[in-house]
Amino acid sequence: MKEFELINTYFTEQLVNRRDVVVGIGDDCAVITPAEKQNIAITTDTLIAGVHFPKNTPAKAIGHKAVAVNLSDLAAMGAEPTWISIAISLPEIDEDWISNFCEGMFALCEFYNVQLIGGDTTQGPLSITITAQGVVPVNKQICRSGAKAGDWIYVTGELGDAALALKHYYGDITLRGDSLAYAMNRLNEPKPRVLAGQAVREYASAAIDISDGLLADLSHICKASNVGANIVLEDLPLSDTMLTCLGAEKAMELALSGGDDYELLLAVSEDNKVGMETTLADMGTKVTCIGQLNGNHKITTTLNNKPTQLNVKGFEHFANE
Amino acid sequence: MKEFELINTYFTEQLVNRRDVVVGIGDDCAVITPAEKQNIAITTDTLIAGVHFPKNTPAKAIGHKAVAVNLSDLAAMGAEPTWISIAISLPEIDEDWISNFCEGMFALCEFYNVQLIGGDTTQGPLSITITAQGVVPVNKQICRSGAKAGDWIYVTGELGDAALALKHYYGDITLRGDSLAYAMNRLNEPKPRVLAGQAVREYASAAIDISDGLLADLSHICKASNVGANIVLEDLPLSDTMLTCLGAEKAMELALSGGDDYELLLAVSEDNKVGMETTLADMGTKVTCIGQLNGNHKITTTLNNKPTQLNVKGFEHFANE
Repeated sequence: MKEFELINTYFTEQLVNRRDVVVGIGDDCAVITPAEKQNIAITTDTLIAGVHFPKNTPAKAIGHKAVAVNLSDLAAMGAEPTWISIAISLPEIDEDWISNFCEGMFALCEFYNVQLIGGDTTQGPLSITITAQGVVPVNKQICRSGAKAGDWIYVTGELGDAALALKHYYGDITLRGDSLAYAMNRLNEPKPRVLAGQAVREYASAAIDISDGLLADLSHICKASNVGANIVLEDLPLSDTMLTCLGAEKAMELALSGGDDYELLLAVSEDNKVGMETTLADMGTKVTCIGQLNGNHKITTTLNNKPTQLNVKGFEHFANE
Repeated sequence: MKEFELINTYFTEQLVNRRDVVVGIGDDCAVITPAEKQNIAITTDTLIAGVHFPKNTPAKAIGHKAVAVNLSDLAAMGAEPTWISIAISLPEIDEDWISNFCEGMFALCEFYNVQLIGGDTTQGPLSITITAQGVVPVNKQICRSGAKAGDWIYVTGELGDAALALKHYYGDITLRGDSLAYAMNRLNEPKPRVLAGQAVREYASAAIDISDGLLADLSHICKASNVGANIVLEDLPLSDTMLTCLGAEKAMELALSGGDDYELLLAVSEDNKVGMETTLADMGTKVTCIGQLNGNHKITTTLNNKPTQLNVKGFEHFANE
C-alpha cells in the first residue's frame, strides 16, 4: 500500500491555489470557506475502463474526461466549479500513466481555477470517481424540473460526434484522417460548457447535460417538468464530419441517441429567447433551437413538418413510462 | 444500464431531510446552503471488497462501514457531519443485498442527521466511494500539523480489536462465542467518534483517526507536526477480549500495528489535559493517555520505564523517512 500512497504525491503537483481552501490535500479532510450568498452544488461521477471509455484511451484523455464529465454536471446546474476530490483505483503502479493522467486532469482544472482538495488511491481495476463542487448564487440553480409547455428546446454545439468515434472504435464504420482525429477528440476530450451554463442561469427554465444521448436526457427534463416535447429533425446541429461520414438520416439518428456529447440541453421561454441567444452569441457559443416543449407526455420528432420516427433505440423510453 | 438506474431508487428511501439541502438526489447536482460562520470539511474514502473488508462481510455492515470510515475522518477534523454522496460499483443486481446495504448506511446517517445528496451506480467489482462533508466553525478545525513537543498523546476507546477479528478471519487464531462476536462487531461496525471529535475541538492541538494502526497514524501526526513521540506500552487501552485471547505482549503488538479501529488519536497540551478529560468523561467516552510527544524525530516505546521494542511491522516507518 505504501507505493500507492506515493502516487498521491502526484496529486499535490497542481498550480491552482484557491484562497477559499483553508486545508488542502494531506489531512483527514479538506476544509473550505464558502462564499457569502452562494450555495454549493455537488456532483459525483464514476468512469470505469471499458464501460465509460475504451480501455486503450490515453491516460491524459482519461484525466481530462474524468474532470470534464463532472464540470459538465455543474454547468448544467449553472454553477461555477471550484473544488474536486478524486478516488482512483489503479491495477498497477505506472508512473508514466499517472503523470499523464494528472496532466490531463490538471490542465482542465487550471483552465477553470478548480482545486483538487482530496484524493484516495487504491489497487484494483481502473476506475475513477470524482466529486466536483461549485458555487451558485442562492436560488439561481437551473433544475431539470423548471421547464414549461411552450418553452423552446436548445442545444449548444453539435451532437453525435462522440458516438461517431465509438462507432469507429467498435468497427461499425471506418474513419480516416481529419474525420477520425475530429471525432476522437470529441470523444476523448469533451469540452464541458462551464461558462455557457453560468451565462444561461438568467434565461433557462431547465437544463441538463447530454451524457446519455439527446432523447434520453430530454426525457429526464420532460419527466421532471411533467411536459412532452417535439424535436425538429432538420434543425439538429450536425458537424460536417457527421454528415459526410453518415449521410443526413443516420447522422440525425446518432444525434438523437448517441451519448458523451456533454453539450447543454436547455428549455427557454419565449420571453427569454432573445436574451439567451444574444448572451451565448456574445460568448461565441453556438446554440441551436431544435424544438419545443408541449403538454403531451411523450417525445415526438418531425421532419419538414411531418411526424417522422427514426430508427432510434431508447426513443420509446419516456413515452412508455 | 436501466436496471442499475433502478438501484438508485433505493438511495432515495432515506428519512433524513435536512433544511440546508436545496436540491437533493435526482438532478445534475445537489445544492446545499452553507451555514454562516462555518467552514466545510470534505473527505473521500473508497472501500474495495477483499481489500478494505473481507468479501463475505454482510451487506448491512458494508453499508455501515462505508459511512463510518468517512464520518471518522470528519470527527478527526472536529467537524459535524452533514451530507454524503456515494459512488457504488456492483457486480450484479441483487435487490436484497442493496436493501441491506442501504439499511446499514441509512441507520448511521439517521443517527447523525446526515443526508445522502447524490449517487452514481455502475456495474463492476464491488467498490464503494463515499464523499462526506461536514461543518466546522471557522478556524476551529483540528489539523495533524498542530501538535507540539510536550503534548500528551491520548486515544479514545480500546485498540486492536478489529485486527483481532481479521486474525480470526485469516485463520491465525480461533475466536469463539462472545469473543468472536465482540471482535467481529468491532471490525464490521466501527463507531466513528463523531461527537468526541467535535467536543475536543477546544482542547486538542492535533488529531487523526486510527485507520492504518496506531504507530502508522501517530507517524502522520509526528511528520506533519515535526515532532517525535514515546508510547508507554503498559498504558495502551486493551479490551478484556484482546488480553484473554492474545496475552499482554501480543495484545500490545496488535494495538500498535492493527488498523480499522477508527478511534481518535489526540495531541493535548498540559494546559488542556483536565478540560479534555473532563469533557470526554461527561460524555461517557473513554479516553486514555498513552504517551507524550517530544523533540526527537522518531517514535519510541517504553515498558515500565525501560525502552522496549516490540515485534511490530511498520514500527521503523517514520524513523527511516
